[in-house]
Amino acid sequence: MDGQISPHSDVIEALRAELGDRLSTGASIRDLHGRDEAYSTPHLPDAVAFPETTEEVSRIMALCHAHRCPVVPFGIGSSLEGHVIPLQGGISIDTSRMNRVLAVHEADLDAVVQPGVTRKQLNEELRATGLMFTVDPGANASLGGMAATRASGTNAVRYGTMRENVLALEVVLADGRVIRTGTRARKSAAGYDLTHLFLGSEGTLGIITALTVRLFGQPERISAATCAFPDVPAAVDTVILAIQSGLPMARIELLDEVQMRGMALYNPDLDMPEAPHLFLEFHGTEAGVAEQVAQFREIAEEHGASEFRWATKTEDRTRLWEARHNAYYAAQALRQGAKGVVTDSCVPISALAEAIARTKSAIAEAGLIAPLVGHVGDGNFHLSILVDPEAADEVAAAKALASRVSHIALELGGTVTGEHGVGTGKMGYMRDEHGDALDVMADIKRALDPLNLMNPGKIVEV
Amino acid sequence: MDGQISPHSDVIEALRAELGDRLSTGASIRDLHGRDEAYSTPHLPDAVAFPETTEEVSRIMALCHAHRCPVVPFGIGSSLEGHVIPLQGGISIDTSRMNRVLAVHEADLDAVVQPGVTRKQLNEELRATGLMFTVDPGANASLGGMAATRASGTNAVRYGTMRENVLALEVVLADGRVIRTGTRARKSAAGYDLTHLFLGSEGTLGIITALTVRLFGQPERISAATCAFPDVPAAVDTVILAIQSGLPMARIELLDEVQMRGMALYNPDLDMPEAPHLFLEFHGTEAGVAEQVAQFREIAEEHGASEFRWATKTEDRTRLWEARHNAYYAAQALRQGAKGVVTDSCVPISALAEAIARTKSAIAEAGLIAPLVGHVGDGNFHLSILVDPEAADEVAAAKALASRVSHIALELGGTVTGEHGVGTGKMGYMRDEHGDALDVMADIKRALDPLNLMNPGKIVEV
Repeated sequence: MDGQISPHSDVIEALRAELGDRLSTGASIRDLHGRDEAYSTPHLPDAVAFPETTEEVSRIMALCHAHRCPVVPFGIGSSLEGHVIPLQGGISIDTSRMNRVLAVHEADLDAVVQPGVTRKQLNEELRATGLMFTVDPGANASLGGMAATRASGTNAVRYGTMRENVLALEVVLADGRVIRTGTRARKSAAGYDLTHLFLGSEGTLGIITALTVRLFGQPERISAATCAFPDVPAAVDTVILAIQSGLPMARIELLDEVQMRGMALYNPDLDMPEAPHLFLEFHGTEAGVAEQVAQFREIAEEHGASEFRWATKTEDRTRLWEARHNAYYAAQALRQGAKGVVTDSCVPISALAEAIARTKSAIAEAGLIAPLVGHVGDGNFHLSILVDPEAADEVAAAKALASRVSHIALELGGTVTGEHGVGTGKMGYMRDEHGDALDVMADIKRALDPLNLMNPGKIVEV
Repeated sequence: MDGQISPHSDVIEALRAELGDRLSTGASIRDLHGRDEAYSTPHLPDAVAFPETTEEVSRIMALCHAHRCPVVPFGIGSSLEGHVIPLQGGISIDTSRMNRVLAVHEADLDAVVQPGVTRKQLNEELRATGLMFTVDPGANASLGGMAATRASGTNAVRYGTMRENVLALEVVLADGRVIRTGTRARKSAAGYDLTHLFLGSEGTLGIITALTVRLFGQPERISAATCAFPDVPAAVDTVILAIQSGLPMARIELLDEVQMRGMALYNPDLDMPEAPHLFLEFHGTEAGVAEQVAQFREIAEEHGASEFRWATKTEDRTRLWEARHNAYYAAQALRQGAKGVVTDSCVPISALAEAIARTKSAIAEAGLIAPLVGHVGDGNFHLSILVDPEAADEVAAAKALASRVSHIALELGGTVTGEHGVGTGKMGYMRDEHGDALDVMADIKRALDPLNLMNPGKIVEV
């Protein structure tokens, strides 16, 4: 403990008796669990626990409850709003050893997994079944973390977010009790929907120790494409018309001209013009995909699309989506040593063109570099506002721009976070977004965690 | 008040000053609000309020809160588990005058409605737009009531239940505060999912005063059909294989041979054999529907299906689905003067065949008449156990059978209520279904309604 006595030394001793060397107070382990991918100030846990079973999580929680010690669940640390930072120290519960696929029910199109299973791992294990898990936030996140943050990503437009893709949960409560929410039945009207209450609760109400997730059959045909547009409004209008026409696209992603410049710098082999692009994917039968592609192409060409490139082979598609998933790093290539302040606006599709136009005006006014990418089929888009983390005035200007952009989303009937979650980064907007409903969230937090031990200081102050 | 002084005469006086003749204490009005379609003991409210605006609901709630008077929201009274029965008297808040469609956002595929709008009314008002609201529980229920009970029905297999079809709510809390949950954006990760908490909360946590619901484009082609099977297992196996093949059917309903006999008695023009049937509907493009129909037919014929009848004209489809929707009344035709004790099992699709087989064995053992119908694509099916309501032993036998059938669903990993809700009728199963999670529901109830004034005695005891 770096020579200091932890205020939680009693519980640490008790946990070490329970977990042996799966309880760590080493500096490097604690450091890894004191930060995430966000632009947030790190804070160390007093210790990190590596449970392997639900029963161990339950005993850890009961001990921490008895000792009034805060706990923060940790998946793989890919969250973007400071969710996993132990603001008050205490125990970081790392679920990476709870990484077993417990059951695959092929006939029911569902799987039961431990929270440390990652999405790529699950899809590897599913490969022989012809089924797939569809939620894809880019990072190879843990499913527990994705559930806790209500994650989504590139193909939510077709298959839904974690909200639609989790049927049931096992959760350990603040005092160590283990509950099960929901069943594997496809629908239920049996009382309060606790599954959805815990989805997106970011570890503030309980720790997810198992999830039942939906699976889909792999489509007969997958076709991916990119195309360039003369300007962002043309690309956005194409998206809006495609969505409104009911085209069941699996992915439809916007990357603006600034982002494309970053991509070219980051990956010179990409060889794509520095113009706004859509990255697309179509799933279906052979005939269905052909029909979708033809309809989409007609809409896009009416809006001046050019430079269509197609990828039907798996390796070409993989390359295309890896380029998209590396957008955050590509953005940083625009400015050496810069960090990105990330925004996460999501608006009704009818307001998307205005939201993006106003957002780009705000960037220009601020005089900052802020590439834009988005899951625009859902009305969701991100900026990565590039700043020198050492320049206080720049950081302040970036935060002011992020705030302006978030309020534009609210003014247009949207949300400040489509998929990244609240953590600490978006807490300042919660009153503006929710009004008095935030008090109801606080009531629920107090009811389920009266001692405020579960990831304290996240989502809502109590 | 039938010559008695109501314990709530103060609040009634205050409400009359507020609402004038939209506050009724007349015997027939109170009687109408003391019962639903369930086999439940009626209990009268002290008065019935007919608010027209959210502000009026808020003032009613604030007054009732100040006077410690229970309130029960009332849609059109088509619920099936005693949800709207004011067990402790107080004020029944009838939302039938809150029946305006507030906005239709064609570009966003959503509509904002007051809770008294019925599903048929909404679809009438949408007709010119080419859009449709899809959740269809049979009865022309109010959307507020459907949201409060997490209703679904015949085409949930394709378009989802109220859980998937409500994006945002306006809710009046126990003390009269008005909150908004969710936004019109298609997804959000902004804190606790209060929308899903209130969906299915049956008026025990707040009163829904506006809903934002999802709409879908009307399909280019709709084709409906019925076909007969040699026995129930053949029909069920057809359903399972069709679902597992990913056939995107809009409706797939099972009616067993007992139900079909009731249909023949109730509607002699129907002219269908007294054999188990599937009632089906396919939505899509011209080519897509043809493809689905061919695939389905192949599966069904492998299982001995015959007597295919097709309905593509609107009036023929309407007749077919009216016959299905009248199944409850048709069941009663099997026995003059009988009432139905209704069950609502829902299981994983892999367990459906076993669930139905064991359920039909239990009926045979009980020696009762209990036709079976089901939204079998979701794994959901109902019995209507016919009893003479005056014969205490029969009623007891029917309740014992209903209990056995509900436990079969639980034993197979399902739920005792796929879509009807808990009300009072299913409260006795909640501990078996939820275990310790029921205590979390009670914690939430106490947090949001500390005085236990909101539809007290429903879902969970506090």
